[in-house]
Amino acid sequence: MTKTQQTLETAQQAFEHFRHGLATGEWEKFIAILSDDFTFSFPAGPYQGLNQGKERMAEFLGYVSEKVFSQGLVFTLERTTFNENTVVFEGTSEGLMFGNPYKNQVAVSFDIRGDKICSYREYLSLVYQP
Amino acid sequence: MTKTQQTLETAQQAFEHFRHGLATGEWEKFIAILSDDFTFSFPAGPYQGLNQGKERMAEFLGYVSEKVFSQGLVFTLERTTFNENTVVFEGTSEGLMFGNPYKNQVAVSFDIRGDKICSYREYLSLVYQP
Repeated sequence: MTKTQQTLETAQQAFEHFRHGLATGEWEKFIAILSDDFTFSFPAGPYQGLNQGKERMAEFLGYVSEKVFSQGLVFTLERTTFNENTVVFEGTSEGLMFGNPYKNQVAVSFDIRGDKICSYREYLSLVYQP
Repeated sequence: MTKTQQTLETAQQAFEHFRHGLATGEWEKFIAILSDDFTFSFPAGPYQGLNQGKERMAEFLGYVSEKVFSQGLVFTLERTTFNENTVVFEGTSEGLMFGNPYKNQVAVSFDIRGDKICSYREYLSLVYQP
């Protein structure tokens, strides 16, 4: 298997855990696949900008599932693009944000090192200010 | 050359024209590479959401270069991911937005058909409301 194929497989596995977390609030499997020096960036809200660490990501995901999308968010995957280090998932996320109907186009980019995700970047297509 | 390689080459050429347009306001070469049934989506402002047609894109790019970033916007490319139909460019854009310092992480996704761009989707990493 080439490095690009390994990267894609690792990212796709992580993405399934990510999607499961969004839908259910169960984030253990996703967090287990993050590297120790993991970083993430997010467009808006209290975690806007660049954040450091798995613990910070766990906090953020708890906030997302408990406060923002407490009834779950459904991510419909539309496209996957990749190279040997990075995989981008484009799709639609839909649910209730703070109880109000929410739908957005999203691009989520994972950097992979070995069998871990070392970086996560989220980009939004429609701007909603909570 | 595989279809994926052709897609990547077409998209990279278009992206150079796109970057040139952002920096200079000269959009002719980029617009020439768009398909007749071209669509685009953008996160904010008067062109927020899904838009149809090359003419609408030309209007939008004129608005961007004349009103929003009238002194030009510099796009620094950081990552390119791809599959046989789609290429995503991730990077940083920096300049003056309505005269104020502006810097953002951006993902731009092109769908390719033949030697044309048939769809453009822009996603932002930091939310700025103009």
